[in-house]
Amino acid sequence: MGMIGGGRGAFIGAVHRMAAALDGQIELVAGCFSSDPEKSRASGADLWLDPARVYGSYQEMARSEAALPPGRRVDFVSIVTRNDTHFAVARTFLQAGFNVICDKPLAYNLAQAKQLRTLVRRSGKVFALTHNYTGYPMVKEARALVGSGRLGRILKVVTEYPQGYAITALEDKADGTISNWRMDPRIAGASNCMGDIGTHAENLGRYITGLEIDELLAELSTFIPGRPLDDDGNCLVRYKGGAKGILYASQVSNGDENNLNIRVYGTKASLEWYQEQPNELIVKAVDLPREIRRRGNTYLSPAARANTRTPFGHPEAFIEAFANVYLGAAAAIAAEVEGRPLPPALDFPTIDDGVIGMAFIETAVKSARRGAKWVKFPDV
Amino acid sequence: MGMIGGGRGAFIGAVHRMAAALDGQIELVAGCFSSDPEKSRASGADLWLDPARVYGSYQEMARSEAALPPGRRVDFVSIVTRNDTHFAVARTFLQAGFNVICDKPLAYNLAQAKQLRTLVRRSGKVFALTHNYTGYPMVKEARALVGSGRLGRILKVVTEYPQGYAITALEDKADGTISNWRMDPRIAGASNCMGDIGTHAENLGRYITGLEIDELLAELSTFIPGRPLDDDGNCLVRYKGGAKGILYASQVSNGDENNLNIRVYGTKASLEWYQEQPNELIVKAVDLPREIRRRGNTYLSPAARANTRTPFGHPEAFIEAFANVYLGAAAAIAAEVEGRPLPPALDFPTIDDGVIGMAFIETAVKSARRGAKWVKFPDV
Amino acid sequence: MGMIGGGRGAFIGAVHRMAAALDGQIELVAGCFSSDPEKSRASGADLWLDPARVYGSYQEMARSEAALPPGRRVDFVSIVTRNDTHFAVARTFLQAGFNVICDKPLAYNLAQAKQLRTLVRRSGKVFALTHNYTGYPMVKEARALVGSGRLGRILKVVTEYPQGYAITALEDKADGTISNWRMDPRIAGASNCMGDIGTHAENLGRYITGLEIDELLAELSTFIPGRPLDDDGNCLVRYKGGAKGILYASQVSNGDENNLNIRVYGTKASLEWYQEQPNELIVKAVDLPREIRRRGNTYLSPAARANTRTPFGHPEAFIEAFANVYLGAAAAIAAEVEGRPLPPALDFPTIDDGVIGMAFIETAVKSARRGAKWVKFPDV
Amino acid sequence: MGMIGGGRGAFIGAVHRMAAALDGQIELVAGCFSSDPEKSRASGADLWLDPARVYGSYQEMARSEAALPPGRRVDFVSIVTRNDTHFAVARTFLQAGFNVICDKPLAYNLAQAKQLRTLVRRSGKVFALTHNYTGYPMVKEARALVGSGRLGRILKVVTEYPQGYAITALEDKADGTISNWRMDPRIAGASNCMGDIGTHAENLGRYITGLEIDELLAELSTFIPGRPLDDDGNCLVRYKGGAKGILYASQVSNGDENNLNIRVYGTKASLEWYQEQPNELIVKAVDLPREIRRRGNTYLSPAARANTRTPFGHPEAFIEAFANVYLGAAAAIAAEVEGRPLPPALDFPTIDDGVIGMAFIETAVKSARRGAKWVKFPDV
Repeated sequence: MGMIGGGRGAFIGAVHRMAAALDGQIELVAGCFSSDPEKSRASGADLWLDPARVYGSYQEMARSEAALPPGRRVDFVSIVTRNDTHFAVARTFLQAGFNVICDKPLAYNLAQAKQLRTLVRRSGKVFALTHNYTGYPMVKEARALVGSGRLGRILKVVTEYPQGYAITALEDKADGTISNWRMDPRIAGASNCMGDIGTHAENLGRYITGLEIDELLAELSTFIPGRPLDDDGNCLVRYKGGAKGILYASQVSNGDENNLNIRVYGTKASLEWYQEQPNELIVKAVDLPREIRRRGNTYLSPAARANTRTPFGHPEAFIEAFANVYLGAAAAIAAEVEGRPLPPALDFPTIDDGVIGMAFIETAVKSARRGAKWVKFPDV
Repeated sequence: MGMIGGGRGAFIGAVHRMAAALDGQIELVAGCFSSDPEKSRASGADLWLDPARVYGSYQEMARSEAALPPGRRVDFVSIVTRNDTHFAVARTFLQAGFNVICDKPLAYNLAQAKQLRTLVRRSGKVFALTHNYTGYPMVKEARALVGSGRLGRILKVVTEYPQGYAITALEDKADGTISNWRMDPRIAGASNCMGDIGTHAENLGRYITGLEIDELLAELSTFIPGRPLDDDGNCLVRYKGGAKGILYASQVSNGDENNLNIRVYGTKASLEWYQEQPNELIVKAVDLPREIRRRGNTYLSPAARANTRTPFGHPEAFIEAFANVYLGAAAAIAAEVEGRPLPPALDFPTIDDGVIGMAFIETAVKSARRGAKWVKFPDV
Repeated sequence: MGMIGGGRGAFIGAVHRMAAALDGQIELVAGCFSSDPEKSRASGADLWLDPARVYGSYQEMARSEAALPPGRRVDFVSIVTRNDTHFAVARTFLQAGFNVICDKPLAYNLAQAKQLRTLVRRSGKVFALTHNYTGYPMVKEARALVGSGRLGRILKVVTEYPQGYAITALEDKADGTISNWRMDPRIAGASNCMGDIGTHAENLGRYITGLEIDELLAELSTFIPGRPLDDDGNCLVRYKGGAKGILYASQVSNGDENNLNIRVYGTKASLEWYQEQPNELIVKAVDLPREIRRRGNTYLSPAARANTRTPFGHPEAFIEAFANVYLGAAAAIAAEVEGRPLPPALDFPTIDDGVIGMAFIETAVKSARRGAKWVKFPDV
Repeated sequence: MGMIGGGRGAFIGAVHRMAAALDGQIELVAGCFSSDPEKSRASGADLWLDPARVYGSYQEMARSEAALPPGRRVDFVSIVTRNDTHFAVARTFLQAGFNVICDKPLAYNLAQAKQLRTLVRRSGKVFALTHNYTGYPMVKEARALVGSGRLGRILKVVTEYPQGYAITALEDKADGTISNWRMDPRIAGASNCMGDIGTHAENLGRYITGLEIDELLAELSTFIPGRPLDDDGNCLVRYKGGAKGILYASQVSNGDENNLNIRVYGTKASLEWYQEQPNELIVKAVDLPREIRRRGNTYLSPAARANTRTPFGHPEAFIEAFANVYLGAAAAIAAEVEGRPLPPALDFPTIDDGVIGMAFIETAVKSARRGAKWVKFPDV
């Protein structure tokens, strides 16, 4: 694989590399790690790459790699740049004939997202989006339980994503390299908090329940003065078919770390999952003992069992879940490269998830701008 | 004390009696336990009461007890009847010169609540409302922490009250004695779920934070067909001063029991409390270890320490918290009866809490009827 | 009922009174609350007792109460004095014809315990010992699960009772009223920690599993210098029938509060219970989801359901469990007083539990004195 | 690196490879994955290795790799074979001039372990033992807290390692490939359970506390009939300096998964850590709120912070901890290969840990054979 972005000091690029490396199936062989050629080169050297395949610009990389013979060029690229460049980079590599794995959110806005979808469909290439939380085995178990009818009809979905890292004004720090750009509307897009983590919450709920949003109401707040974008948001949701939802995301929930969690309530049973305790899934129903389903056990669904590396009690966590997205995408990419039909039951987030995610962001922002009124979810 | 309502089989009446008895400070000596004189008598006999003071109607009880000499008549009555009769019963006893402890919600509607408040103020009597969850020591600790400034400015309050007992249609059961009337608008008032438990959530948040609601948006749902009232509701809240809130209550959250919980997020720190684990309070802030404050320890606030009966590690729970409301009210009542000034720093829910609670119910219902639009909280 | 001991400032006496009062079935009408007549009188006044029935010595109390006509005298006495006087007080009241509820441990030593048992058997009176932890509904559920065969054959029992209150040298404090006498061999007996809380652990394990100890090895320690008795002890246990056990108790486990817990491992399933989270019981077995059984649910055993006052999710705790011991004993006492046969399936700790508990203490001390060698459990 | 053992289907070999690959610092380039040359070759092909460096025997591998020029041959080998062959394989590679990472337990018996230590010392090579649980960041935090004096003097250590996977008789299954050889004294050595997991518990306690065992008493059991070795063991420990300990390990604790945990009690504070919730460390002390220290935070010790890859709230788990052992060892190996002095403050388990671990196994077995008597820990 090749990587665009993720130079020295970038958090998410390093996660992508660990996720790709974990299973010994994917090798990083090329990259353009920074728009600064010097920094790109230095980062490539850190990673033991052949200097000839460390590029100073992504355009050069696309050209040069495409010029290599099929067996030697990268099979796909991972795009881990900032939101505003996802579109241009992805378009370039798709047009150059490469498969793509892209960090979320998909693009700077919904219009770009739709264009990219058109490109992907025309290209026939694999496009994976790293909504990594759906890579957790117990999230797959949750989805399998809902799919099996165990919960009955779903009445309510509560999805929370509180973080607290932005309670202090990181964007004002001299070295605020992480959070800065996410608060900058020219780079991040129309939303900070809903775009950065609200989309994960939306994606997680849809992945588990399959429910589609019909109407959305969002109150976005900027609690820390001086921020041009939201740092907190509360949404009410009306799903098609009658279920109701609460979805909130926050980066000013002081003392919370990365507390994504979801509760799905059905007529027959309910479930709960907490990202910070990812190896457990709670299932509960009136008049029955609670059930704690745990990763690595034989009683789990095939999807939960297939996305696991260690026996029960030997916990897995964030990187392993991330690696599951890579493994799923890599299986599809291998098929594409070898000209085989895509394996059935492929399970990783795609361009379509990305388009819906962008629609979610735009709808939330539209509702918020109207003073938190109900807005119809667009038909994308 | 005397009791009105709470005959054989009634849950909340028994809780009130246990709460009153626990500390050996309050003795039940009279009652009208049912509007059916026969059932009232039988219930009184179960409780070892003097038959002469077991009455067939509350009017008779008010008259007869008032006719007793001061040292012999009841000092106060506990009203544990259904919502629709709180007003008439309370008025009767207030007018007959008795102090009152009343189950929540205060009345059938806001208009009644305000009338009752006028009566209470004129009478000079003590009126306590059993919002029992504020009796928990660690809830008092939470309030003390907010009051001390430990949390800084409050940004966000998330209050949840999911129950699941009504996921099956109890009101259709032949013996559905518990839940039936709560679903009946002639008895319960304008709301089932918001009235029964949403008001507890509202009261808990206000007790801990002191924040007042400025605007409210409520989406009330009736998930189980055939119910004339709501069995679930999601609210967004705008507090005066800029804080935001989510408050939800549900009786169809399958498998949840009585999972009232609250999270309060501030600029300096945040806190979490779960009614089903009431002996702990979690305090957290970025860049600091989490803190678990536990009931019974010397480091707690005076209010938390004063409302505790057993040493740390010897857990207290629901009945003890309920008894704290009784103890607080009883201290005030004793002062009233003896003509002493009320003790300072009395800490129990009053008629004012009741009026705000009824305003909360009516505002939520109004918002819901408009399709979940923002509604100004009335100035009561 | 009457009470001996439990004057002002005594912790356990107050717990006994709350437990007795909770259900409105038992009334405290007489007492000798201190060996100091003045203090006894003052304590009686605090409790609103008729001064005529507040006594200056327990001997006087036994005489005077026995002289009252049957309907007017106490039905039983609660003995909440220090260990060294349990025997003399209990003997006095048994011989005077009263039923007895006694705090644990039963006596100063095993010899006294056996004498008392002889007296109880001869008297035909009810004798209950407040091993209160067996009053928890979920402990009764645990016992029922074992009894039903759900766990299969029991292989291993791990019982822990760490407290940390004695990590600082309370006995040296001027006002160290609580812990002082427990460290004094003239009052407490041969052991502090094993006697005070180790016996609770022993009793809990035996109550749940029914297993009898065959051999015991105990290493008792005194970690805080200057204490004449143990403040910590680790035991290995060989049960009759081949199961093995670990049992430990400690009062110097810094930061632990009252963390009694038990795990029982069987061939078919295992269970876990934690006193500080008493409303839950965990059941687990290989290849099955974990099961959390929760108090107040219909799926529980009759014993668990019968010993509950509030619906699920309205937690119960220490005092309620204590009250269950009182309720059980009171049912037996009522039968005794009225000359009826004892109700079947009575479930409260008896004189026999007390004798075994004293044997446990003496065996542990014997093993420890030999350098922590295996010692046969006596046939008592 | 090269690997010996870990062919198709082996659990621990795959874990070693993931741990080595995670950080992109170590590349697997050679191996002898099975004593069956055919299986070795097939496993090598699975791993994309150059067939020329996939060997049919470890002796051949040692010879061939040693014959390669310094820059091309492996820098170290990972030995993930069964216990009985660790010694011969490790000796061969040490003598051929390679650094070694070896799975635990170090050897078949203590005599072998000591011989190996002599070899290692003479060779000047790096020898790391994969006691992987000490690689967890919060275990390093625990060690740092003890080292800083935060706990005061340590009084008691409770280490538990219950698993339940062997409650059913896996060794009798036709396909019982995992557990079989661990129950076979010719392969596993003198103990199954104490050797396989008891040594992890011993190592964890020593790593955190630095305490050395003075005397040990072990009761080993074989609960499932037909097993030649122990499947459960309870130990009491007397540490040098006066602290006491309980250490137990079990593979028949039905329903437990891999529940390694440790509690360390000190005069000033105590700590708790649970392998199945590895991102948290609990610190507690009388009269202070409990403290939950969480991975990834700035307030942690340098060692805890250095051994972390993802921000707080993005949990890490088993493989990441394992990878920390590899990273530590790899840093030492790189220095050795390049002829640099070893970095200071290297933190990974060494040959000395292995020797003490083997002494622990032999001492426990000796005590058990004497009927669970106290045995002096040998001076190794």
